[in-house]
Amino acid sequence: MSFDAATPERQPSRPVQIRRLSAGTWETRQDVVACEEPLEIRVEGRSVAVVMRTPGHDEELAAGFLVSEGVVKHPRDLLEVSQCPVTADSKGNIVDVLLGGAVVNWDSLTRHVFSASSCGLCGKTSLDSVFQQFPNVTADWQVDAAFIAGLPKQLHSAQVTFQSTGGLHACAVFDLEGNLIISREDVGRHNALDKVLGWALMNNKLPLYHHVLLLSGRVSFEMMQKALAAGIPLIAAISAPSSLAVEFADRSGQTLAGFVRGDTLNLYSHPHRVR
Amino acid sequence: MSFDAATPERQPSRPVQIRRLSAGTWETRQDVVACEEPLEIRVEGRSVAVVMRTPGHDEELAAGFLVSEGVVKHPRDLLEVSQCPVTADSKGNIVDVLLGGAVVNWDSLTRHVFSASSCGLCGKTSLDSVFQQFPNVTADWQVDAAFIAGLPKQLHSAQVTFQSTGGLHACAVFDLEGNLIISREDVGRHNALDKVLGWALMNNKLPLYHHVLLLSGRVSFEMMQKALAAGIPLIAAISAPSSLAVEFADRSGQTLAGFVRGDTLNLYSHPHRVR
Repeated sequence: MSFDAATPERQPSRPVQIRRLSAGTWETRQDVVACEEPLEIRVEGRSVAVVMRTPGHDEELAAGFLVSEGVVKHPRDLLEVSQCPVTADSKGNIVDVLLGGAVVNWDSLTRHVFSASSCGLCGKTSLDSVFQQFPNVTADWQVDAAFIAGLPKQLHSAQVTFQSTGGLHACAVFDLEGNLIISREDVGRHNALDKVLGWALMNNKLPLYHHVLLLSGRVSFEMMQKALAAGIPLIAAISAPSSLAVEFADRSGQTLAGFVRGDTLNLYSHPHRVR
Repeated sequence: MSFDAATPERQPSRPVQIRRLSAGTWETRQDVVACEEPLEIRVEGRSVAVVMRTPGHDEELAAGFLVSEGVVKHPRDLLEVSQCPVTADSKGNIVDVLLGGAVVNWDSLTRHVFSASSCGLCGKTSLDSVFQQFPNVTADWQVDAAFIAGLPKQLHSAQVTFQSTGGLHACAVFDLEGNLIISREDVGRHNALDKVLGWALMNNKLPLYHHVLLLSGRVSFEMMQKALAAGIPLIAAISAPSSLAVEFADRSGQTLAGFVRGDTLNLYSHPHRVR
């Protein structure tokens, strides 16, 4: 087993400039968000998975993925794990694994994983493909910061199953008067959001140009993409956004608020919609 | 657009019997966990995705998934959304969508989603396939409850990036003396665990028969499967397990502890490893 020693250690986080509201006072300051980027895992040159991950320890991620899939069990099963070098095109987000004689059931290995064919692998390509599919938001309405700060309490009241299990993600859509329109819970945060969007479609509420989305958890690239598909201009979350979520919001025209807790919140993009 | 009114509403949570430690006292009691089951989404009879979700509002989930993918935008784009009836084989975990003339780019629709071919759709089939691949754990060692209660503090100290971003999942492996062997952070909790397993493989530590795994977040079926692939007999989590994680642990022989917070913890399966 050998490793490509030339691979630079990638950064797990990066600085962003935010507007922070705390106890009634706004300030512009530098903050730090966790990096989220796609990684393609290849085995013997064949693409078997694309995962959205935090850069760093990518060879371990590829090796551990193959442990989880039952392909490798011992160091001798790995002949070489190498990361493609950073170039203008790829950002180095590809790891190649050469196996030391382990027998691979290719149907099984690729059965449960993301299909990687023609998937944009650097963040840029991936974002470009989304923006070609869905128009940017241009809504020019405004809400008060206190409006956003009051939403988590309403969501919490609506989280029936979370209160009994402590194990569910939730999301909710509010109108600009602060009325909760719909909320849904699920073990998967992307499912909770898809259920909300499905409800909106079936009830002829799309696009949600005059609505705010509240998320109980963290904000990833995937969550922002779903919100844009529904035309939602303002996304507020109780937890942190990823680097790619912030970059996405910058480009899509969406306002992204995070760490909405008590009288504190952070604005990561397009703060003009919050008074 | 029509819906299959005969579809029974599925339950988002179910009762489980647990052993709870609180302030030094053990009690056996009934608790509730969030349900996690696979759902296959079909469009025009073709399988396009399998998601692990909490049952309920499954038609909305399928419709919202298609909104997120840019396939449908208006109620007229959906001709019919129907759920297959519950049978001994399927548990009704399939939703079929008939489109009202929307044009589908099949390559694009199936590009980013789980490939569903020959994926076991009812929980039972899915679990069976895992247990055929990885042996059950049979470790007969024991640890004190105080040992488990002390692990989150050590993990927190090791979470360098989380402390700056608030946006990462973490997991760590400890030996039976309570030494932290390895910890990793990632925006995806499955990635954090795969990185730990990859490190263990590369350092010739597999299988981890004499180790404990600590997770910062919630425990899903997928996390238990990865832990079993590495042979880990005891999994402790700061948050809640799903129903399928508990069912998995019952069958695999793994001890599953959840809500490890302060001097409180819940044991969901095989409590004999905790004194």
